[in-house]
Amino acid sequence: MPDRFPHDEFAPLERLFEAQSIAVIGASFNLDKIGGKPIRYLQTAGYQGAIHPVNPRYEAIANLPCYPNIAAIDSPIDVAIIVVPSHAVDTAIDDCVAAEVPFALIFSAGFGELGEEGRRRQADLVAKARAGGLRLVGPNSLGIASSSNSLIASFASLFDRHKQLKPGRIGFISQSGAVGAFIYGIAEDDGFGFSRFVSVGNEADLDVADFMAYMANDPSTSAIGGYLEGVNDGRRFLAAADLVRRAGKPMSFMKVGQSEAGQRAAASHTGSIAGTDAIYDAAFRQAGIIRASDPQGLLDFLQFHASPEVRPARPGVAVLTVSGGCGVWCADRLSTLGLDLAEFTPETTRRLTDVLPPFASPQNPVDATGQIQNDPTMFEDCLSTLLDDPGVGTLVIALGLQELQGEAMAQQIVAAQKLAPDKCVVVAWLAGPEIVHTVLRAAGIPIFGDLARAVDLVGAAVQAHHVAAAPIPVKSFAPTASSIGALPLTEHEAKQFLAKHGIPIPHGRLCQTFDEALAAVNKIGYPVAAKGQVSGLAHKTEHGLVRLDIGSDAALRSVYDDLEQALATVGSSDDVVGILVEEMAPAGLDVIVGTLVDDVFGPTVMFGLGGVLVEIVDDVAFRVCPVTDAEAAEMIDSTRASRLLNGYRGGEPLDRDALATVISRLSQLAMTERSTIGEIEINPLRVTPDGVLALDALFADRGTA
Amino acid sequence: MPDRFPHDEFAPLERLFEAQSIAVIGASFNLDKIGGKPIRYLQTAGYQGAIHPVNPRYEAIANLPCYPNIAAIDSPIDVAIIVVPSHAVDTAIDDCVAAEVPFALIFSAGFGELGEEGRRRQADLVAKARAGGLRLVGPNSLGIASSSNSLIASFASLFDRHKQLKPGRIGFISQSGAVGAFIYGIAEDDGFGFSRFVSVGNEADLDVADFMAYMANDPSTSAIGGYLEGVNDGRRFLAAADLVRRAGKPMSFMKVGQSEAGQRAAASHTGSIAGTDAIYDAAFRQAGIIRASDPQGLLDFLQFHASPEVRPARPGVAVLTVSGGCGVWCADRLSTLGLDLAEFTPETTRRLTDVLPPFASPQNPVDATGQIQNDPTMFEDCLSTLLDDPGVGTLVIALGLQELQGEAMAQQIVAAQKLAPDKCVVVAWLAGPEIVHTVLRAAGIPIFGDLARAVDLVGAAVQAHHVAAAPIPVKSFAPTASSIGALPLTEHEAKQFLAKHGIPIPHGRLCQTFDEALAAVNKIGYPVAAKGQVSGLAHKTEHGLVRLDIGSDAALRSVYDDLEQALATVGSSDDVVGILVEEMAPAGLDVIVGTLVDDVFGPTVMFGLGGVLVEIVDDVAFRVCPVTDAEAAEMIDSTRASRLLNGYRGGEPLDRDALATVISRLSQLAMTERSTIGEIEINPLRVTPDGVLALDALFADRGTA
Repeated sequence: MPDRFPHDEFAPLERLFEAQSIAVIGASFNLDKIGGKPIRYLQTAGYQGAIHPVNPRYEAIANLPCYPNIAAIDSPIDVAIIVVPSHAVDTAIDDCVAAEVPFALIFSAGFGELGEEGRRRQADLVAKARAGGLRLVGPNSLGIASSSNSLIASFASLFDRHKQLKPGRIGFISQSGAVGAFIYGIAEDDGFGFSRFVSVGNEADLDVADFMAYMANDPSTSAIGGYLEGVNDGRRFLAAADLVRRAGKPMSFMKVGQSEAGQRAAASHTGSIAGTDAIYDAAFRQAGIIRASDPQGLLDFLQFHASPEVRPARPGVAVLTVSGGCGVWCADRLSTLGLDLAEFTPETTRRLTDVLPPFASPQNPVDATGQIQNDPTMFEDCLSTLLDDPGVGTLVIALGLQELQGEAMAQQIVAAQKLAPDKCVVVAWLAGPEIVHTVLRAAGIPIFGDLARAVDLVGAAVQAHHVAAAPIPVKSFAPTASSIGALPLTEHEAKQFLAKHGIPIPHGRLCQTFDEALAAVNKIGYPVAAKGQVSGLAHKTEHGLVRLDIGSDAALRSVYDDLEQALATVGSSDDVVGILVEEMAPAGLDVIVGTLVDDVFGPTVMFGLGGVLVEIVDDVAFRVCPVTDAEAAEMIDSTRASRLLNGYRGGEPLDRDALATVISRLSQLAMTERSTIGEIEINPLRVTPDGVLALDALFADRGTA
Repeated sequence: MPDRFPHDEFAPLERLFEAQSIAVIGASFNLDKIGGKPIRYLQTAGYQGAIHPVNPRYEAIANLPCYPNIAAIDSPIDVAIIVVPSHAVDTAIDDCVAAEVPFALIFSAGFGELGEEGRRRQADLVAKARAGGLRLVGPNSLGIASSSNSLIASFASLFDRHKQLKPGRIGFISQSGAVGAFIYGIAEDDGFGFSRFVSVGNEADLDVADFMAYMANDPSTSAIGGYLEGVNDGRRFLAAADLVRRAGKPMSFMKVGQSEAGQRAAASHTGSIAGTDAIYDAAFRQAGIIRASDPQGLLDFLQFHASPEVRPARPGVAVLTVSGGCGVWCADRLSTLGLDLAEFTPETTRRLTDVLPPFASPQNPVDATGQIQNDPTMFEDCLSTLLDDPGVGTLVIALGLQELQGEAMAQQIVAAQKLAPDKCVVVAWLAGPEIVHTVLRAAGIPIFGDLARAVDLVGAAVQAHHVAAAPIPVKSFAPTASSIGALPLTEHEAKQFLAKHGIPIPHGRLCQTFDEALAAVNKIGYPVAAKGQVSGLAHKTEHGLVRLDIGSDAALRSVYDDLEQALATVGSSDDVVGILVEEMAPAGLDVIVGTLVDDVFGPTVMFGLGGVLVEIVDDVAFRVCPVTDAEAAEMIDSTRASRLLNGYRGGEPLDRDALATVISRLSQLAMTERSTIGEIEINPLRVTPDGVLALDALFADRGTA
């Protein structure tokens, strides 16, 4: 995707996470203080590299020699932890540069999070560091952790709970130190850890994208995710996501600020607007990032994919339960998540019919009923039958209790999974005995005590499988010079510009006199539309400047006079450029297509229903530009409005391909003209059975958009 | 609500749940078999009543004398458990009737769940039992349990896990034995139990409504809920819900079959169509039942309200956290649940500003930041400030970790709650030390290790508070005799009927000749509409029978001729009844209002947008009839379409009151005519700034609907 996103160089971070020597600038003698905790955590975790406390006030800290300054350390330093007060950070950075330290973790707060002045000081630090070959994490970072080398360069009290880091293959990036630590804590309580963990702090230098790009190639990391409040540079973020996707590592992020209330809270919390949430949704989708809705779901997804025994959750979901009610519940939830239940082969149905009691139904979801108590082989037979079905990619097993038979059933599940190693099995076992968790976990089969967690995981994992299986789209965007000239444009000028870029518009002519209008009609034929053209005027209809369905010379005469009069009242004579006479468009569906330049992701393209509908239907699709025709088609299909394109109330199907082409062309245009055009709105675009026509168009420049 | 629902007598069930003596017909010597387990469970739980095994093959079972038949027992029996094979149930029922037993629990399966023949046998049993003064639970029931008297009349292996029943004040009713037992198990794992539990089985006699009505007045039960697949008699269910609501007990049910896939699964599982899910949604809303979406959410809601320390979750939700990210997440989730964050008083904002560090924001959600580590009184000050705000009804506290300070913070929460006993406090504590759970639970403050569970509970609990605070609507339905006569009706006849019942229609006249049409126009004035009227013909427009905006005598002449010709081709002369000439309606919004008789809930009324919109917008509201004007207004407001009534694109607001009146009148009509009319559809109903007009109407009879 070379033309899509700026492939800035991402920082190589091996020496950060695999540091052999760590200096703590501002080390504290008290190992419970922020300057002492990293030393204690590194020591108790069993970190094998060198630890160098730096503080002129002490000779030694925690049995380690303490240095008056970093220059006094006579071996190379990979990472400097800076825990001095904010006013002293500047000097610490100078010292690090002088000592040729490649990475500094700044725990100190008091920078960008305090406002403009702090942001300026922070930018100065970064400029100085970069010039000196030093890369920064933070300021206001909680630090990093890396389990394979027992590295805890952090002061998070999270690390007070356990002496050693739990092993794990999740790479986790958090824009909030606290949320990141909480999630790390939940993982540890559940028995696993992360390969790499970073609290990015203010992201003055290294940002989320750098860490994603590093983790994409990090052999100790299998799945990547984290917690986001808003990214700085959407295109750089997407470029990093692209690297992750190409590396075949599933990604999931939780991004807050979905609701208006959440956005207000985020603005007050982060001090900045975090971009339009719907565009994050679109960007995540394009990048193959699964959006998590809560911390637990995020962890479940990441741990599933980080497990060494992971079996991709292919579509075709079968449900096996001993309670019809649980089966119905699973069918409901899977449907909400957009997943279809697998259709069984006749062979499967026949085998199930043989095995199940007569009152059970051999359909998906399969209810083996309470009879499994009396017939221990029945459950086994159901398992093998379902896993043998080639249409079943993923099996959800929903059970409960079974104090006595639970262990045997869990072993039956393990055995069945062994015989079907390419199938994904996920178990929900409500109020089950501890032994079933032990047996299934030992075999690497995910098990939850909660129906919703199990089914939600399957939903997210099947989505991730689709991402992994989908070809990565090759974008054909070829940048050309901007050609639009000065804005604003009249409707006529806007349409001419669109037509030049391959977007169909109605036949028409801009007329200065009634005779020109008559001549235009001679070429076009009645009925026609006539619209007064005023430069920079948005709401023509409300100013009486739009007249439709004119069917005769007499009607045209009267309309022309009316429009001239209306024009005289609305615009100065400089702005009035004439009357546009156009063919009437054939009947069809009116939609809106447009572009806008998002603060975070840059040019984006949108599609939605036109007219009064947009006001009540939350059914607008966005994509980050450029999009291919195929992506545009998928974008259209993601809306409910797309159903109307199939032809409604007995009408013919409408020209979906022509609509997709307009969207992809607009997306190219938005890229080319991104320095000039803030917004394009074609409203309406009339979609007919035989093509599309831009009936009105409005351009806004970057300043006014 | 005396006229709303049939207040059948609900069965008095005290003697069932407070049974002093239980006979087990078909008792087994093996206490691990279905006929032995109830005896073992009753004994180990410490049941104080008499237990009478009945089986001619044994002298004694589990040290209890065993009787050859129930007649041989010389003391009164409150409950007979029937565990004989299905073919022997008939005789067992006869024996129970003869012995004047008031209740039988039929564990035996092999009845209604097997199909028509089983349903017939089941009905025969019920008829015989009822005639003999015997009420039945089941067949195919897992039994009942009651914690206060240690009664376990069940064979569910659930009761193998613990010797004694855990105490609790939840009344739980399950249409699935397995799901009910799983949920019971989850509750027990979480440390609490139920006051009463019943697996209703096939509900051949006693059904969900009977148990709800009993629990409404049961002093040991504070909150009522359960698991539903579909109720038999919707009106009886609503009458029981009404009793519960009047008793002031919160109710929550999980009802499966929300999705199409779920409905298919439910149909295959229960063997019957469970009614339209959207109508369940509406009925639950009208009855004040909170619909739970999963077992865990259901339990969280019920346990919250069953707790002796329950503090109603009043609206005005404040969030206090130590992580801005958690605060934003809570704001998002609360918004999704339809809850608004409380707006703080200036006093609260001032106090927060004093207390919080300068970089924290004194807004809701309140982020006390990591500074609480350094300033232990800050958290306390935030708590008291927020609980002092009169606009704050409920406080969500979102924390994490705090291995060292957690206990002190938990105690601060307990102290703050004590000082604000009328405020509801709910805590989410991610990866917190065990001690915080111990401290908060001891004080009756709900605490969860999961953000979503805490916030979702607050969402449901605030909804329950609204139910409790809302007046119970008094329905004014006064049944009158049906007056509609024979269906089908032409549009004209349908409109006349509606007009008679107070629903506005356009001025118009049914004409047999062109002269009559001219005469009609003389009274109405141009422009007019003309529509061919054919009895029983639904799609007039498609048959060319609708012509609008006729503006002159000449145009009328030509239209009249066209319509006569069209009429000649579509209907036999018997069905053609003339041409309806009507005034053209003023501009406005076209909506659909209608009624339909639901299999479960009987007459219902619906409202939605008209036109092409209904096909893509899932935005139709239903209510069980009758509804008051106020309920109709609330129903309108529950749709997104209601926004269009406010006036859109600068238009005047439309007449919402007139629309509500039509809905309530239709709902009365649907009740009166329920034996005749299956469906009424007014499509469109034109809503204008000054009233409404039914522009077309269609009636379907009970047979064809």
